[in-house]
Amino acid sequence: MMIIQTIQEMQQKTAQYRQQGKSIGFVPTMGYLHEGHAALLKKAREENDIVVLSVFVNPLQFGPNEDFDRYPRDMERDEKIAKASGVDLLFYPSVTEMYPRPLSVQVAVKERVDVLCGKSRPGHFDGVATVLTKLFHIVMPTRAYFGMKDAQQVAVVDGLIRDFHFPIELVPVPTVREADGLAKSSRNVYLSPEERKEAPALYAALQKAKRAIENGERNPSAICALVEDYIQTYTHGIIDYVEVYSYPDLQPLQKISGKIIIALAVRFTNARLIDNITLDVES
Amino acid sequence: MMIIQTIQEMQQKTAQYRQQGKSIGFVPTMGYLHEGHAALLKKAREENDIVVLSVFVNPLQFGPNEDFDRYPRDMERDEKIAKASGVDLLFYPSVTEMYPRPLSVQVAVKERVDVLCGKSRPGHFDGVATVLTKLFHIVMPTRAYFGMKDAQQVAVVDGLIRDFHFPIELVPVPTVREADGLAKSSRNVYLSPEERKEAPALYAALQKAKRAIENGERNPSAICALVEDYIQTYTHGIIDYVEVYSYPDLQPLQKISGKIIIALAVRFTNARLIDNITLDVES
Repeated sequence: MMIIQTIQEMQQKTAQYRQQGKSIGFVPTMGYLHEGHAALLKKAREENDIVVLSVFVNPLQFGPNEDFDRYPRDMERDEKIAKASGVDLLFYPSVTEMYPRPLSVQVAVKERVDVLCGKSRPGHFDGVATVLTKLFHIVMPTRAYFGMKDAQQVAVVDGLIRDFHFPIELVPVPTVREADGLAKSSRNVYLSPEERKEAPALYAALQKAKRAIENGERNPSAICALVEDYIQTYTHGIIDYVEVYSYPDLQPLQKISGKIIIALAVRFTNARLIDNITLDVES
Repeated sequence: MMIIQTIQEMQQKTAQYRQQGKSIGFVPTMGYLHEGHAALLKKAREENDIVVLSVFVNPLQFGPNEDFDRYPRDMERDEKIAKASGVDLLFYPSVTEMYPRPLSVQVAVKERVDVLCGKSRPGHFDGVATVLTKLFHIVMPTRAYFGMKDAQQVAVVDGLIRDFHFPIELVPVPTVREADGLAKSSRNVYLSPEERKEAPALYAALQKAKRAIENGERNPSAICALVEDYIQTYTHGIIDYVEVYSYPDLQPLQKISGKIIIALAVRFTNARLIDNITLDVES
């Protein structure tokens, strides 16, 4: 595995691979890798000649009240996981390498942002889309891998790739779960033992909603109410949101039909958990 | 010459050329081609294996008070000029091909816009940078050609390519001029015979400023005053602006030094003319 810190070297490397006709799978991350990232790398490894992992904590996607400096970092551990996952190139640029001066251009995300978690993080997805535009041009991948845990991010990246015609295939990777259904997250360690026992109810609530839809329920409000009731009955968590939208357009629905997402965020004492499922519903 | 109207076909074509190791020169235009465009095509033809011309009147770069519908179009003539210029691929998409639905992402230009012509056209360069981002991904050129007549556009494109790391070489092409120095423009036909006789004074004023700088003048205000005086003495035009900035950053200067631009806009009865020169000034 080669560790690359400059944009120029990275562009040269990947240009060589493309000239050789090699496919490049790209997993962009902010580091502090966990099993969710490992699942992305595994899929990228299976589907491509070359796997590129980027580790870059992107200041542009942090809000003024979000702590960029305190975001966890552990490069030594990340390197080990990257090696074990068969990564060929680890791109690890500094902030000054990526932002040597004020940007003269940025990507503004106009759709798919004022819902779900984006509602409470204005500008967050602008920062995500801007750094991805830079990284996509630096790595020029054949395929880019993103976890469905952050389904809104996948929707924004889908819009970015489609509307700007990036010649890149977006590969969404299913959420990795514990045996009891809880979505894996570095935040799960902040749950109290009792909260950890309750937390699988989030996914169970989504599964209950899925069954209700399979049994003919088509009213989005009824689905949200069902999920909320379940979470309120089986956990002490405080519901941030439970929402149903078309996917990946993230438009409100009068009636459940087509590709949809049911997404939720629930606050426990020291951790806010998110989860979602997407379904393809016959009319 | 092949005329291509769909994004998909264009991406397939240019991907083939790249796989064959061919260099692609790209000239993006809004059509109604004149000698300025022909100069871009000539240079692109000299420097590349394949020349791609796009003709697309981009609604996104027109303001609410600018008349997109009345922008002149003449596809038959454009085709003839393209053929005569040795164009290989003419990309001529419809508005619905380029904008089939509301864009979920756009490029926001943050620097180099609130000066010169950009000052009076808010959002114009956002529209330019957005359509170029799309076109760059559709054509994936080796080199892209822009005329220095619109020096601010060249500066914005320079920022776009540099900050987003497009693997594209920007080639600025000098302004094409009449024998008497007047910059060629489709707007020159709107000048009265008397105004046409006066109009070369714009370039003459810029040349006078150049000589003053060569003779040691380093005060930007003095240079602007000199240009304004000359234009007011020798024409009946009304000065919109005469400005001096660093180039391509378009930052104000305390003292003339390094790469700079002197740019002006002058309103005649039925035509607003722009012109500029760039200089590399020793400190």
